[in-house]
Amino acid sequence: MTRITGIRTLDVRAPTSITLAGSDAVHQDPDYSGAYAILETDGPHQGVGMTFTIGRGNDLCCAAIEALAPLVAGRPLAEVVGDGAGFWRRLTNDGQLRWLGPEKGVIHLATAAIVNAVWDLWAKEESKPLWRLVADLTPQQFVDAVDFRYLTDVLDRDRALDLLQAQVPGREARIAELERDGYPAYLTSAGWLGYSEQTVRERCRAAIAEGWTAFKTKVGIDVASDVRRCEVMREEIGDLPLMADANQVWEVPEAIEWMRHLEPFDLRWIEEPTSPDDVLGHAAIRRAVAPVGVATGEHAANRVVFKQLLAAEAIDYCQVDACRLGGVNEVLAVLLLAANAGVPVCPHAGGFGLCEFVRHLSAIDYVCVSGSLEDRTTEFADHLHEHFVDPAVVRGGRYLLPELPGYSADLWPASIDALTYPTGSVWR
Amino acid sequence: MTRITGIRTLDVRAPTSITLAGSDAVHQDPDYSGAYAILETDGPHQGVGMTFTIGRGNDLCCAAIEALAPLVAGRPLAEVVGDGAGFWRRLTNDGQLRWLGPEKGVIHLATAAIVNAVWDLWAKEESKPLWRLVADLTPQQFVDAVDFRYLTDVLDRDRALDLLQAQVPGREARIAELERDGYPAYLTSAGWLGYSEQTVRERCRAAIAEGWTAFKTKVGIDVASDVRRCEVMREEIGDLPLMADANQVWEVPEAIEWMRHLEPFDLRWIEEPTSPDDVLGHAAIRRAVAPVGVATGEHAANRVVFKQLLAAEAIDYCQVDACRLGGVNEVLAVLLLAANAGVPVCPHAGGFGLCEFVRHLSAIDYVCVSGSLEDRTTEFADHLHEHFVDPAVVRGGRYLLPELPGYSADLWPASIDALTYPTGSVWR
Repeated sequence: MTRITGIRTLDVRAPTSITLAGSDAVHQDPDYSGAYAILETDGPHQGVGMTFTIGRGNDLCCAAIEALAPLVAGRPLAEVVGDGAGFWRRLTNDGQLRWLGPEKGVIHLATAAIVNAVWDLWAKEESKPLWRLVADLTPQQFVDAVDFRYLTDVLDRDRALDLLQAQVPGREARIAELERDGYPAYLTSAGWLGYSEQTVRERCRAAIAEGWTAFKTKVGIDVASDVRRCEVMREEIGDLPLMADANQVWEVPEAIEWMRHLEPFDLRWIEEPTSPDDVLGHAAIRRAVAPVGVATGEHAANRVVFKQLLAAEAIDYCQVDACRLGGVNEVLAVLLLAANAGVPVCPHAGGFGLCEFVRHLSAIDYVCVSGSLEDRTTEFADHLHEHFVDPAVVRGGRYLLPELPGYSADLWPASIDALTYPTGSVWR
Repeated sequence: MTRITGIRTLDVRAPTSITLAGSDAVHQDPDYSGAYAILETDGPHQGVGMTFTIGRGNDLCCAAIEALAPLVAGRPLAEVVGDGAGFWRRLTNDGQLRWLGPEKGVIHLATAAIVNAVWDLWAKEESKPLWRLVADLTPQQFVDAVDFRYLTDVLDRDRALDLLQAQVPGREARIAELERDGYPAYLTSAGWLGYSEQTVRERCRAAIAEGWTAFKTKVGIDVASDVRRCEVMREEIGDLPLMADANQVWEVPEAIEWMRHLEPFDLRWIEEPTSPDDVLGHAAIRRAVAPVGVATGEHAANRVVFKQLLAAEAIDYCQVDACRLGGVNEVLAVLLLAANAGVPVCPHAGGFGLCEFVRHLSAIDYVCVSGSLEDRTTEFADHLHEHFVDPAVVRGGRYLLPELPGYSADLWPASIDALTYPTGSVWR
């Protein structure tokens, strides 16, 4: 019986601010980074989990992982995964540490790293990729991993069981479909805000040639340049789906006004039009900009925020984040909330490691929870994958299902040597 | 011209978990703590600011203060306070650090410590207590300190100026009134959840003898013991105002059901009945439990959450926290939002340092913003004040106005020696 004997942390950062990959209206010089929680065990495997940041402060997440470590170290894995909801509740409700959130900010990002590491370890012990581990759970086992606290006015355990039970028939057929066709994806990395018009054109053309069928651009600094960028992208991609991402830059009335200028471009969604905390603001924007959809989630702090975004009919697309939420357990909760509300889940990705994680999450959503690919598409950006032992692979604009055991956070030793902050070779 | 030359941090913790002072349904063994930001200057004063935590993780807030320090160190004080909103925006919108929030959790608590230290330094330079410094600002100067980002759909600068302008007449009369009578307060420390019935009775009697006229009890672990506790308190305090605080322990439907059992006790408000992120849940509870009011705010992450609590008519009492919000600048924003909505501000206090701070904030609210004492009362708990150079003083159930220059975070050297974690005498 494997026991978690301790937790190590690892602070890795990629110097993406040099190329402006990842740049947007609010984050103009990100260094895409991972704060790692590495569960040491007395068995053959380590559990490797990560949370994503964009540079400075990654060390704070590592320190927070260390602060949470006593709640995990010494425990048998079977005990932790046998009571997933209880474990998650203990981690997020330490009588003193919870004051730092609760369930938000640095302490919740650190929770994500640890929780993701637990699932990685469990999947490795079962010799399955994470998505397969979850697909093989019974509906009962699935809900046992979910803490329904603060959700029961909308979704309780029984309702969740009904939702999951309804998707049991056809699970194997959907897995076979994903193994054959992959999961639909869209490309963000043609339209980073720091790129020139020429770069955008070249990247769109290369992407079309690779088989991409959906695209996203960054907007929000200047109306005229947004209009021009949308024109350029429409010229290059024709009438393929085009989304836009404002990264929280607008006031509520400003978002509504700005989107009038982008009406000609038939955008599928506007993403993060305002403060990620502003549920009611998103609802007001959604009412005003229809038929353009509203998408948000990468900064939605926890399942309670998603509960409200869905209850207020504030979003058309639910963008769960593998690391902003408190790891797999809370992601499962939000997948259930979204299915319950009939809103498609289109995970946020693009950051360091996120593409590696979301292919698992989208597969879980399709196979176990929603049973639908309609109006679903998962973000992809084409950088930093070379650092991962089990990198995200896209063919013809669709994510291939990962096959290696675990949750895909493992880095190559050479990448650890290069990216470790501040001692790695790229930082020296 | 004073320049901020650097920032030191200080991690102080009081071992309150030994006596259960501060215990509630969710935080059962708090060690009330302060993460200090100390602004070193080339002038005669230091700026001393603090954020409040309940023990473990206080070091994470100190580390986050250090992460933010480069945004402050080296700046002239006049430049920082001359563009208060701009300074606050820079601190909360560092292109990389903002990912850790934005504006929530550890990084926002750290922001509070630094921002509070800036105001302390400014007030010391002006030889005024903070409340007087703010009361002496023109409405124009007041709004210059407020970042209206994400608020303008409800409250913009012009509307805020109108609100402040309307309160200019009578400011000196209200100051004279507060100097004579103090500001109305209520007592929490008779009803900590860890106290026995006998202790509660004794503390209520002592408080009545001291002139207290309003009380709060903790609830939420067990209906029968809550009913008993309310009975005991009603027996002791008669028909004086009694509030109850559930500290986030309930589901939305559970809160509504539980409050039925407390109907006989004519509670003035139920505080934090559920998740602090659940704006819509608070609104549902408020509709169901009226005429009992709903109060919340000590865990409301930022002004955007307050904007929504007010817009959704989810609260009857707005409980700003001096340290959960990003310091004085954001508190001023929330005072304006509450006045704009006609909702009374009843600040959260009781924790280490919080009583020292809120007497300034309530005075500012009355003198400059709301102009009303109706239905207002500010929390007080009777412990830990001995550590502060300028401790909160209550007479006859009312806070006296502080008179020493600054924002009252300064500790006695002996208290620093005793409480510094982990090297101080109480921790060795």
